[in-house]
Amino acid sequence: MEYKIALIPGDGIGPEIVAEAKKVLDRVCEKYSHKFSYTEVLLGGASIDAHGVPLTEEAIAQAKASDAVLMGSIGGDAKTSPWYKLEPSKRPEAGLLAIRKALNLFANLRPAYLYNELRDACPLRDEIIGDGFDMIIVRELTGGLYFGARKTTEENGVRTAVDTLSYNENEIRRIAIKAFEIARKRRNKVTSVDKANVLDSSRLWRSVVEDVAKDYPDVTLEHMLVDNCAMQLVRDPKQFDVILTENMFGDILSDEASMVTGSIGMLSSASLNETKLGLYEPSHGSAPDIAGQNKANPIATILSAAMMLRYSLDLDKEADAVEAAVQKVLTEGYRTGDIMSDGCKLVGTREMGDLIADAI
Amino acid sequence: MEYKIALIPGDGIGPEIVAEAKKVLDRVCEKYSHKFSYTEVLLGGASIDAHGVPLTEEAIAQAKASDAVLMGSIGGDAKTSPWYKLEPSKRPEAGLLAIRKALNLFANLRPAYLYNELRDACPLRDEIIGDGFDMIIVRELTGGLYFGARKTTEENGVRTAVDTLSYNENEIRRIAIKAFEIARKRRNKVTSVDKANVLDSSRLWRSVVEDVAKDYPDVTLEHMLVDNCAMQLVRDPKQFDVILTENMFGDILSDEASMVTGSIGMLSSASLNETKLGLYEPSHGSAPDIAGQNKANPIATILSAAMMLRYSLDLDKEADAVEAAVQKVLTEGYRTGDIMSDGCKLVGTREMGDLIADAI
Ligand SMILES: CC(C)[C@H](C(=O)O)[C@@H](O)C(=O)O
Ligand SMILES: CC(C)[C@H](C(=O)O)[C@@H](O)C(=O)O
Repeated sequence: MEYKIALIPGDGIGPEIVAEAKKVLDRVCEKYSHKFSYTEVLLGGASIDAHGVPLTEEAIAQAKASDAVLMGSIGGDAKTSPWYKLEPSKRPEAGLLAIRKALNLFANLRPAYLYNELRDACPLRDEIIGDGFDMIIVRELTGGLYFGARKTTEENGVRTAVDTLSYNENEIRRIAIKAFEIARKRRNKVTSVDKANVLDSSRLWRSVVEDVAKDYPDVTLEHMLVDNCAMQLVRDPKQFDVILTENMFGDILSDEASMVTGSIGMLSSASLNETKLGLYEPSHGSAPDIAGQNKANPIATILSAAMMLRYSLDLDKEADAVEAAVQKVLTEGYRTGDIMSDGCKLVGTREMGDLIADAI
Repeated sequence: MEYKIALIPGDGIGPEIVAEAKKVLDRVCEKYSHKFSYTEVLLGGASIDAHGVPLTEEAIAQAKASDAVLMGSIGGDAKTSPWYKLEPSKRPEAGLLAIRKALNLFANLRPAYLYNELRDACPLRDEIIGDGFDMIIVRELTGGLYFGARKTTEENGVRTAVDTLSYNENEIRRIAIKAFEIARKRRNKVTSVDKANVLDSSRLWRSVVEDVAKDYPDVTLEHMLVDNCAMQLVRDPKQFDVILTENMFGDILSDEASMVTGSIGMLSSASLNETKLGLYEPSHGSAPDIAGQNKANPIATILSAAMMLRYSLDLDKEADAVEAAVQKVLTEGYRTGDIMSDGCKLVGTREMGDLIADAI
């Protein structure tokens, strides 16, 4: 089959890790007789440097005309990038929020999985890790505080800033459905996280989630307050299967969960809408300090490409093959610097990409 | 000296642990020739059971007429307490928010300290703990999403819920000053946590904090995004001295930090206003499952009483004596069940209170 993929190399280590993901996809094409055509799209710092804004209409059109968008990382080096002189709200982050909105990517999926080979990198004690943990955060991505009205005013010389957290039933229902559908393919448990003892939006969240749960009698639903969830991720991450939550809580909890695995260089993510189109990117940042040094771990991006094969292109077998190749290379003891440990073989970004491509 | 203390035993284990704190304070009075008079005040479930509401005007007046308020924990057992039939926004939590507002308790201080004797209870690996960590979260407590306007409306059968996050300069300045003053008495570092790449309120927060920092050239200020902070607390808690943040982020991060110590039964908290009056309570909850069984750890409440001596009554020597007594009893190997480990001596709530009182 033929597929059109929009590639956003981005800033920092972005171009290097995307190149390795492309290498792996080329191998998939060869082995399974597909054809992927790529269009390079600018976002974030790279777009500001070229066009003065973090996201252009043209870039949105290119993304929409594709079957999927594969991204490196945006952000770059605050000290050297020309865009850093822009005020914070106009910086690369703004491009990321804009593309999420433009493509209506309301469902952000972030797996937090502990590879058995990488247990030593996990900051938690062995007793807590137990047999390992494997959860996925389903974060609402186009509502809440991120997209509500905001303004800063001044009265009698005193500035006041206001942001708005708003959710309607439909927004909550569609993300809840995603979470329950995913739970069905996993261990049948959804933990819905909110702050229902304080927020109206959380009380609505809870009631809509309970309503959706009625259609999934095979899935266990539990509610957890966000402060408690931040504790439980450290105390006993094994308890979680699918965590469902709103945008800002999801931002905080998914980063915490990825650090709890100890190997953020391994963690992929997908941002989906109601169609097949999705945006796939590693959970980690653009690490400008090691950019261009063949040191970055490309695995999170390669696993994001695997998610792309699965969710946007319906190529499950191919996705399985990529994930199995990553597992094989880890089992053989190859490691980039960020996940290196005693007795393993240290390799660079390109070598890791070669090894995984060859293992397919 | 004579002091008036309002006591809020609260729900669950609250009455038991407050009794032990009182025992320790009695010993302080005896040794240092002070006189404390106590008024019992109802809040939360206990107040709902007695008066139908979680906080009465009379309770507020009693608290205001005191030099300090010492509290157990509120919340009780969802299954057996009569107040559980109230809708969530009218439950005990509402009493807690109301008393914070009524007493203008804008500064919530929550130390997260790892006792060397309790390293084994810490969920983090030894390499990460290193020589231990000792931070304090300074959380803004009377603004932000907790106290902004909120409403739920319905249009064409679709409900929408809105909460408002608002801060003005004055609210930010006074909490920032608290954080910098505290940092001066500690290791001279403030980490201000916000989401300035998304929120207007965070951008205002950042600019006001920078302004305040100019008066504290001896204190190092660093800004950190909230998602990154949630990661750093797990990755390297040693890096933090004082964490300064707004209400909701502080709720999440302080619970995460307390769990990172592994001994939440040890952690105290203080909520202060511009006067000397403050409210002191353990960081943990009301643990209804072990209520009335002489099992609860009273140390967090006893250490909260020590904070009360220090911040509201200006009795530093006495506060030091209580903290030293806790340290001595730990060193001698006495433990309640929650912090028990091999080779230590298991004691109940009352015995722990006796031991600490005797050690003064
Ligand atoms: C860069 C930032 C705006 C973004 C977010 O907060 O959503 C990032 O932290 C993420 O999680 O993708
Ligand atoms: C009970 C709840 C309203 C409260 C809060 O969120 O502030 C609690 O979690 C706390 O941290 O004191």
